[in-house]
Amino acid sequence: MKQYVFKIIMETRDYECDSQGVVNNANYLHYLEYTRHKWLQSRGESFQQWHNEGIDVMLSEVKLKYKTPLYGQEEFVSCLNVRREGARFIFEQDLYRRSDLKLCLQATVTAVSLVKKRLSKGDEVAYLLGLE
Amino acid sequence: MKQYVFKIIMETRDYECDSQGVVNNANYLHYLEYTRHKWLQSRGESFQQWHNEGIDVMLSEVKLKYKTPLYGQEEFVSCLNVRREGARFIFEQDLYRRSDLKLCLQATVTAVSLVKKRLSKGDEVAYLLGLE
Amino acid sequence: MKQYVFKIIMETRDYECDSQGVVNNANYLHYLEYTRHKWLQSRGESFQQWHNEGIDVMLSEVKLKYKTPLYGQEEFVSCLNVRREGARFIFEQDLYRRSDLKLCLQATVTAVSLVKKRLSKGDEVAYLLGLE
Amino acid sequence: MKQYVFKIIMETRDYECDSQGVVNNANYLHYLEYTRHKWLQSRGESFQQWHNEGIDVMLSEVKLKYKTPLYGQEEFVSCLNVRREGARFIFEQDLYRRSDLKLCLQATVTAVSLVKKRLSKGDEVAYLLGLE
Repeated sequence: MKQYVFKIIMETRDYECDSQGVVNNANYLHYLEYTRHKWLQSRGESFQQWHNEGIDVMLSEVKLKYKTPLYGQEEFVSCLNVRREGARFIFEQDLYRRSDLKLCLQATVTAVSLVKKRLSKGDEVAYLLGLE
Repeated sequence: MKQYVFKIIMETRDYECDSQGVVNNANYLHYLEYTRHKWLQSRGESFQQWHNEGIDVMLSEVKLKYKTPLYGQEEFVSCLNVRREGARFIFEQDLYRRSDLKLCLQATVTAVSLVKKRLSKGDEVAYLLGLE
Repeated sequence: MKQYVFKIIMETRDYECDSQGVVNNANYLHYLEYTRHKWLQSRGESFQQWHNEGIDVMLSEVKLKYKTPLYGQEEFVSCLNVRREGARFIFEQDLYRRSDLKLCLQATVTAVSLVKKRLSKGDEVAYLLGLE
Repeated sequence: MKQYVFKIIMETRDYECDSQGVVNNANYLHYLEYTRHKWLQSRGESFQQWHNEGIDVMLSEVKLKYKTPLYGQEEFVSCLNVRREGARFIFEQDLYRRSDLKLCLQATVTAVSLVKKRLSKGDEVAYLLGLE
C-alpha cells in the first residue's frame, strides 16, 4: 500500500448494495466525501462550520476507477492524500478491501473553494488545511 | 447543445440536496445510471433482466466534471451518447439545466460486461445494444 | 381507490432497490416527501422557500404499512390527503402499483411547523396551505 | 435509558443531512436497518446469507416518532429489543444522541418472514434468532 496522510476503516452497509448484490456505484462518492470530512475533523475543522462562515468547498472534477466490487458488510480501508494546485485542491483517495488489501477504488477528487459564494484563489482553505 | 442519441427531462428532488442547498455530488451518478437504464428501456432492454439471464454490466471508470450546481426542484435535460471500444462501452453523458440549457455536468462512464460472472469481450452486450 | 386531493404517477429506480431486488424500505419515505413537495408546488408553495423565510416543517410521526413490494422500473400512483389537527398536519399518503392499482404502501405522516426555529401553533402553515 | 438487548454507537454523516441541515427523515430507516443487521451479525447471522438460503425478512409495518433532530457528524446510540408475536417479529428501536442521551427517535418495526418466497409462520427465523 502507498503512503497516505489519512486512513480510516469503514464498512459497507446492506442498504448501499443494489440488486446485483454489490455496492452501488454512487455510494463510493459518499465514502469518499465521508473520508474527507473525517480527515478535516481529525484536524479540528468541519465543512459545515466553514459553510456557516461563508467558505464552501465544491467539487469540480472526479475520476473514479472501479477495480474490485465491494459486497455488503465488508470492511475496507479508506485512504487519502491531498495537495494544492493553485486554486484547486486535489485529493487522491483509494479504497482497499480490508481482508486482503485488494484495491477496490482509485479516485482523484478535485475541489475548489468559494468565499461568500465567489470563487476563491484558495488561500483561505489552504491556510485552514495547512497546505502551501 | 451537441447531438445525442438519447435525452430525457429529469428533475432534482429536495432530498437529493445537502446542507449547502445543492444536489449532493453522489446523486449525479444516480441520474446518470437512471438515464442509461431509461435508454435501455427505450430499446426494450433492461439491466435487471440481463442480470437475471447472467449478463451484468459493471462500471470500470467514471469521469465527472461538475460545471454548475443544480438546486432542489430544478429540471434538467439528461443526454447520452454511447460507443463500443473493444470490451468497453463508453457513455458520454451530459446534464443541462432546463431553464437556460447551461451545462451542469459532463460525464464519461466506461462499462464492461460480465457473462456468467466472467469478464466478456463485449459481443453479447454489443449485440443487445445494436452497437458494432 | 379512495378519493385524494393530490395524485402523481411516479416510477421506481433501479438504484432504489436492494439486494433482495425490491425497493429498500427507506426509499418509500423519499417517495412520500417528494409527493408532499409536488403537492405544495402544485399550490405555488415550496418547503425550500418557506425554509428561507424562517418557516420549517418537521415530521413528528410516521406510520408505514408495507403491503406489496415495488420492484425496479415499476410505475406507481402516489396519493395524498391532508388535514390539520391543532398544531399538527396529518398527511394520509398511499402508493398504488400502477399496473393493477394494488395498494403497496399506506402511510400516515404527521408534521409540525417551526417559525424562526420555535414550535408554532400552525396558523402560518395552515394559512399557506389553505387549511382551516 | 431503558434496557436493551443490543446497542451500538453510530454517527451521522453530512451527506445524510438535507438543506434544513438535519438528517433527512428517510435516513433513520437506514440507521434502524443497519442496527438490525449488526445485531444479527453479533449473533453470527446475516440477512444476506438467509436471502441466499431462501429466507427473506420483509418489513410489514414501521412506526417512527421523531423526537429531536440529529445534525451532521453527531454520534448517537442505536438500541434494539426484539420479540416474537406469532408470525411477526417486533423490533423496538430507539436512537439517543450520545452527548446527553436525549431520545431522538423511537421506532417500532414489524417484520415477517418468507421461506422460498411464501409467507412463513416464523418458526425458521425464530429458531435462527433464538426467539420463542
